[in-house]
Amino acid sequence: MAGKIRIGIYGYGNIGKNVEKMVAKNADMELAAVFTRRDPGKVTTLYKGTKVVAADKLLEYKDKVDVMILCGGSATDLPTQGPETAENFNVVDSYDTHAKIPEYFKKMNEAAKINKKAAVISVGWDPGLFSMMKSLFMSVLPEGNTGAFWGPGVSQGHGEAIRGVEGVADAIQYTIPSEKIMNEIRNGSQKEYTTKQKHKRSCYVVAEKGYDKEKIAKTIKEMPFYFADYETEVTFITPEEMKKDHSGMPHAGHVIRTGMTAPDEKQLMEFLIRLDSNPAFTASIMVAYARAAFRLFTEKQHGARTALDIPVSYLSPDSEEKQIAEML
Amino acid sequence: MAGKIRIGIYGYGNIGKNVEKMVAKNADMELAAVFTRRDPGKVTTLYKGTKVVAADKLLEYKDKVDVMILCGGSATDLPTQGPETAENFNVVDSYDTHAKIPEYFKKMNEAAKINKKAAVISVGWDPGLFSMMKSLFMSVLPEGNTGAFWGPGVSQGHGEAIRGVEGVADAIQYTIPSEKIMNEIRNGSQKEYTTKQKHKRSCYVVAEKGYDKEKIAKTIKEMPFYFADYETEVTFITPEEMKKDHSGMPHAGHVIRTGMTAPDEKQLMEFLIRLDSNPAFTASIMVAYARAAFRLFTEKQHGARTALDIPVSYLSPDSEEKQIAEML
Repeated sequence: MAGKIRIGIYGYGNIGKNVEKMVAKNADMELAAVFTRRDPGKVTTLYKGTKVVAADKLLEYKDKVDVMILCGGSATDLPTQGPETAENFNVVDSYDTHAKIPEYFKKMNEAAKINKKAAVISVGWDPGLFSMMKSLFMSVLPEGNTGAFWGPGVSQGHGEAIRGVEGVADAIQYTIPSEKIMNEIRNGSQKEYTTKQKHKRSCYVVAEKGYDKEKIAKTIKEMPFYFADYETEVTFITPEEMKKDHSGMPHAGHVIRTGMTAPDEKQLMEFLIRLDSNPAFTASIMVAYARAAFRLFTEKQHGARTALDIPVSYLSPDSEEKQIAEML
Repeated sequence: MAGKIRIGIYGYGNIGKNVEKMVAKNADMELAAVFTRRDPGKVTTLYKGTKVVAADKLLEYKDKVDVMILCGGSATDLPTQGPETAENFNVVDSYDTHAKIPEYFKKMNEAAKINKKAAVISVGWDPGLFSMMKSLFMSVLPEGNTGAFWGPGVSQGHGEAIRGVEGVADAIQYTIPSEKIMNEIRNGSQKEYTTKQKHKRSCYVVAEKGYDKEKIAKTIKEMPFYFADYETEVTFITPEEMKKDHSGMPHAGHVIRTGMTAPDEKQLMEFLIRLDSNPAFTASIMVAYARAAFRLFTEKQHGARTALDIPVSYLSPDSEEKQIAEML
């Protein structure tokens, strides 16, 4: 490869900041600019040299950015920002509204295909790595039972969804898995468990003055996709408590499948993560897939792809020869 | 797809038998025949309907087999059988002599490319799934430390290597990992550990009458690739003890990577397996990759591929739409 892969960051929140950090850890990449809808003069980046550009100047960077990493939220940003950006850039996003991914994939695929770009969508850890593991495990062990478990930890998407509720000043959400059900699946239980049985959701909310807390709690608990199907607890706290007790962003998760290759032959496959920082991990994944997006583009593999469609070798900076020699 | 994928099994040992079993569990496949160098009349298959054919009639099945699964051993069978078969068939193998894979890949790639076939090589769990995980984990967390651990369990390849030693009537090998070092890596140790530190190899051997046991033990312990780099114990037992105490083939393994996304930010990724039957699991993997081999062939993606080069969606019998809807 002649030069470095030039990365753009669109949206500079938690994920965006961590993408900036991770690009610096990948020697074959460089950061072209951060794009923000805020006043660029008021954005303080992690590194002094990082260029900050107003989002309305995005198109001026059409030939200066190889891959744009979309760091907006799934609830309101990505549904329009994703397809629009894919018309002009190769993109990577972590769109995570599971139930709407087929629809989003279709839009991204069309936008990218028509404009001869590569779009890698929904690559966080779930959807993303967990999707890859679920698919792999099921193909290798066609008769069996899979359980995906999240937590204990903070889910950014769910916190963001709560922060979108009227009267909410700040919020954080912890997902807590059932150890008991994890062990049942590891030990070969072929029962189907609902996500509701497997987890509960615990929300800590700072309310704005003058809003009805009971109404806020009800709105959260009834929110479709995010909370309606779960046992959800809402606890109201002060801004001081939020800062003191809830400033970390740890997370964890498991994909467990026990398959039967004969009536008396149990085979367990498990993927697990334990994260000090969920946004830093999500950013790490997106940056690795940015490399894949650029390679897909250079190979004229236009259109949208997910973690299911991309071989792991596309995520690596190493040559095929080096990978075969060192990984196999 | 019009018809089922027609599978051939070349070599009918432990793995071959399990491939027969796993093909029956995949509704989009059917078994064309088992090919053996033994007298076909003397081979008893798992299922009554299975056709057994002499290996020297392989070429008569050129148009009757879509993918040939090579179930021979890596030490003596595959180095010649692999490239020869890839001239006439799409193939899948689990070639596992790690140090020689680059050389084997090259031969398989040439044979398959020239003859417009697809060859999927080295797809067991290690090499294979472990290779995929090591590569994925390293790309996502470029700064960190990976440990691959095998066992506790039986390694077929190593047992086979011992059975190739003059004077050995039967043998089994257990690989035993260090729990202490696994936990050190999980907790963020960035030390490099040798495979020797991480494991020991325990061999149980039945000697033929009249052979020098000390010489056999020395030959085993000095065997390159397999034993020379490890703490190896050789214990001689009777055929009765072998049958009574060592007839199961359990195994287990872990790929662990702890990466640092900041000096105080540890991120753990781990893949683990716990197997009642190692050959059944290896066979399961090969059968899933047979589906990929056939798809690569129909897409005219000729040549050799490893687990690093194949997206997980190629292993699934489901359509792209179904996978996106259910896995993401």
